[in-house]
Amino acid sequence: MINQIKTIGIIGGGQLGKMLILEAKRLGFKVVTLDPSPVCPCASISDKLIVKGFSDKEGFLELAKESDVITYEFEHIAVALLEMLEAQGANIFPSVQSLKIIQDKLWQKQALQKAKIAVPLFEEVKDLADIESYYNRHQKPFFLKARRGGYDGKGNYFVQDLADCAVGFEKLGGGKIDLMAEEAVDFEKEISVIASRGKDGKMVVYPIAENAHKNSILDITKVPAAVDKKQVPKVLDFARAVLECFEGVGTFCVELFYNSKTGKILVNEVAPRVHNTGHYTIEATRVNQFENHIRAIVGLWLGCTDLVVGAAIMKNVIGDSNGKAKFVGIEKAYDICNTISAHDYGKETVAEGRKMGHYTITGKDIKEVEKVLGKIDIKIINN
Amino acid sequence: MINQIKTIGIIGGGQLGKMLILEAKRLGFKVVTLDPSPVCPCASISDKLIVKGFSDKEGFLELAKESDVITYEFEHIAVALLEMLEAQGANIFPSVQSLKIIQDKLWQKQALQKAKIAVPLFEEVKDLADIESYYNRHQKPFFLKARRGGYDGKGNYFVQDLADCAVGFEKLGGGKIDLMAEEAVDFEKEISVIASRGKDGKMVVYPIAENAHKNSILDITKVPAAVDKKQVPKVLDFARAVLECFEGVGTFCVELFYNSKTGKILVNEVAPRVHNTGHYTIEATRVNQFENHIRAIVGLWLGCTDLVVGAAIMKNVIGDSNGKAKFVGIEKAYDICNTISAHDYGKETVAEGRKMGHYTITGKDIKEVEKVLGKIDIKIINN
Repeated sequence: MINQIKTIGIIGGGQLGKMLILEAKRLGFKVVTLDPSPVCPCASISDKLIVKGFSDKEGFLELAKESDVITYEFEHIAVALLEMLEAQGANIFPSVQSLKIIQDKLWQKQALQKAKIAVPLFEEVKDLADIESYYNRHQKPFFLKARRGGYDGKGNYFVQDLADCAVGFEKLGGGKIDLMAEEAVDFEKEISVIASRGKDGKMVVYPIAENAHKNSILDITKVPAAVDKKQVPKVLDFARAVLECFEGVGTFCVELFYNSKTGKILVNEVAPRVHNTGHYTIEATRVNQFENHIRAIVGLWLGCTDLVVGAAIMKNVIGDSNGKAKFVGIEKAYDICNTISAHDYGKETVAEGRKMGHYTITGKDIKEVEKVLGKIDIKIINN
Repeated sequence: MINQIKTIGIIGGGQLGKMLILEAKRLGFKVVTLDPSPVCPCASISDKLIVKGFSDKEGFLELAKESDVITYEFEHIAVALLEMLEAQGANIFPSVQSLKIIQDKLWQKQALQKAKIAVPLFEEVKDLADIESYYNRHQKPFFLKARRGGYDGKGNYFVQDLADCAVGFEKLGGGKIDLMAEEAVDFEKEISVIASRGKDGKMVVYPIAENAHKNSILDITKVPAAVDKKQVPKVLDFARAVLECFEGVGTFCVELFYNSKTGKILVNEVAPRVHNTGHYTIEATRVNQFENHIRAIVGLWLGCTDLVVGAAIMKNVIGDSNGKAKFVGIEKAYDICNTISAHDYGKETVAEGRKMGHYTITGKDIKEVEKVLGKIDIKIINN
C-alpha cells in the first residue's frame, strides 16, 4: 500500500492496460480492470476483470467500489459515467475535466490555443455550408474531422476541393456527429513527446520520438528523433506547456508536427494516457512511461526518463488479415540480434489494422538500429 | 506461440516466479503455477494457479498436462515427481538430472571437482565418528552441512572444536539426514555471477555481483563488484564452466568466494534457477535474468547482458517481525532519488527473515549509488 492506495482500477483491458499492470505489479498493487472482453490482454494478469461494456453503469460502479484510484487506457469514455463516479468520491486520473476537453478535438485545440500553444488552423463547422465556406476562404485541401471518437486516422477525411466537401460531410456522418475543419499542415516529420506529471504539478519529460505511419496507423517510432539540437528544448517545452494547460496527472502523449526548414512546431494532438509512441521507453529509458503513469496517479515522485541506450526503434506488429492470430519470426529475429525485445499482446484473433504486438530494437545509435531493423521480419499471420 | 510453446508451467509461486511471469507475459506466454498458497505472489498474474503441495503427485500431473514446458523457482523439489513427469514426456528445464545433482550439496561439489572447477575442501561424513575424524585431521573450525534442503544459512552449522562436532551432528539431525563437512574458507568477499545457457549450449554471462549478508540472508548486491580487473575474465569463466558442467538450460547463479590478496577463487554454491543476487538485472541490464531464463527454456536466442547503467545496488526488504505486512518508506525514497525502483512481492504476512520485497538504486558509479542508499529507509512493518 502506497499513500493509502492498494488497488488501481483501469478502464480498458487492451495492451496499454496490460503494460500498466506489469509495472503496477512490481510495486505491489492490486489491479481491477473493466473490459467487455473476457479474453482481453489484461484478463490473465488482473486481480479481477469486470466483464462489462464501456457504457455499462453497473460496471463503472463495481470498478469504483473495488478501486482506490481509477485510470484509463483509452480516451473515448463516456464522461457522464466518470462524473457519476467522481460525484461519489472516486479518485480518477487524469482528471475527468481534462479528459472531457481532450476527447473533443475542437475543445482540445481551443484549450491549447487559449494557453498560447501553437496549433494548426482549425474551425468549428456546424453544417455543409460551414465546410464549404471554410474551403472557399482558404482555397486549399484540408482535413474534416469528427470531433470525438476518432483514432488511427478513423474519423478524418481529407477534403480535396469544393465538391469534396459534401463527400466528406456524408462520409463522416455530418449532421449526426459534430465536425471540425483543420489545416493540412506542411510538416517534415511527426514527432511526439511522452511526459508525466504528478499530483504536485512536477513533471518529467521523455526524449523526443520520431514517428512514421502506415495507413494512418503508427508503424515505427525512432528515438532520439532527428531534430535540430537547438530546437530540442523548444519541443520539450511544448510538452510541458500542454501538460500544464490540462493540469494533467499521469502520463500524456503530445504529438507534434515539425518542420526543420521553417522551424515551425505545432501540436497535432494530445492523448491523456500512455501511448504507442512511448513503448520504446520500456527498454530504452530508466523508468518507462507505464511505471511513471502508475507513480503519478498514486502520488509517488516520478522516475528518471533518461535514455539508457544510445538509440531505439519500436515497430508495431499489425494485422493484415482476419482470423486466429499467430506470431511468426520471433525465433529468427532473436537469432539475428540480442538487443531486440518482442511484445505479444496475447490477442487471440487478428484483424486488419489491429495492433497485435510490437518489438523494440536498441543499439548504440540510430544507424546501427536501422541496420538491424532491415533484417527483422516479425509479423502476425492468420492461422 | 514460440517454438510450439504456448504455456509455461512454474513450480513455486514466490517472488522469483512472479518476476518470471512478468517477463513471460511480455512475450505472450500463458503461465500455470503450482503453489500450495492461494495468496502466493504469483496468484494474481498466473493464467492458472494449481493450489497443491510440492509433494502432491496430482498437482504435478495437472501442471504437466497444462504446460508445454516446465521450470521451477526453487531447487528443493522431489526429483521423483519430476522424473515421473519426464517419463511421460514432459519438457523440464533445467534438466531433472542436473537438478538432482545440484540439490545434493555433496554431489554438486563432486561434480564441480570432477569438472576441475575449484571448490572448498569437502568430505562426505556418514556419522559422528566421520565428523570427529574430519576435525582431528584438519584441526580447525569447519562447516557441517545438511546435504539437501538448506537455504539462507539454514542447514549449516559452524563446528568450532572437537566437542562441537556432536552438537552440530545433533542440531542438523545427523543420523536421519545426510551430512557433509566443508572447509571454512578465508574469503575476502562473496561474489556471484548470473549466467544463462540455451538449449543449444550457447551462453550469456552477467557482470559480477558483490554480495553482503545479514544473519546468513542476502542483504545487498552491488554491481559492478570491486574485483581486480585482471581477475574478471577468470571469474566469468568459472560461471561458464559451471553451466557447462551441469549442461544447464536456463538461468543459473554461481556463488563464489573471492580473495583479492591470494587471488583465490572458489565456487561456493550453484543455484539452478534465477537468483536473488540477479535482481539488479531488471533495472541495470538490457535483458534481465528472468527474461533470459524464459528465452532459454522456450528455445529462443539469449539477450544482451550488458549493464545499461554505471552501477546498481539491490537491497532486500526482509521481515523482522510477524504479522500483517505493511511496506513503509517508498514515498520518501522516491522523493529522494529518481533512479530507485521498489519491488513489493505482495506477500500478505510478514515473518522474521522472510523476503518481502527489494529495491534497486542505479547511478553513474558505486560511490554515487552508495550515497543514495545511505539515505533510503524502505522497510516492512507488522501492521
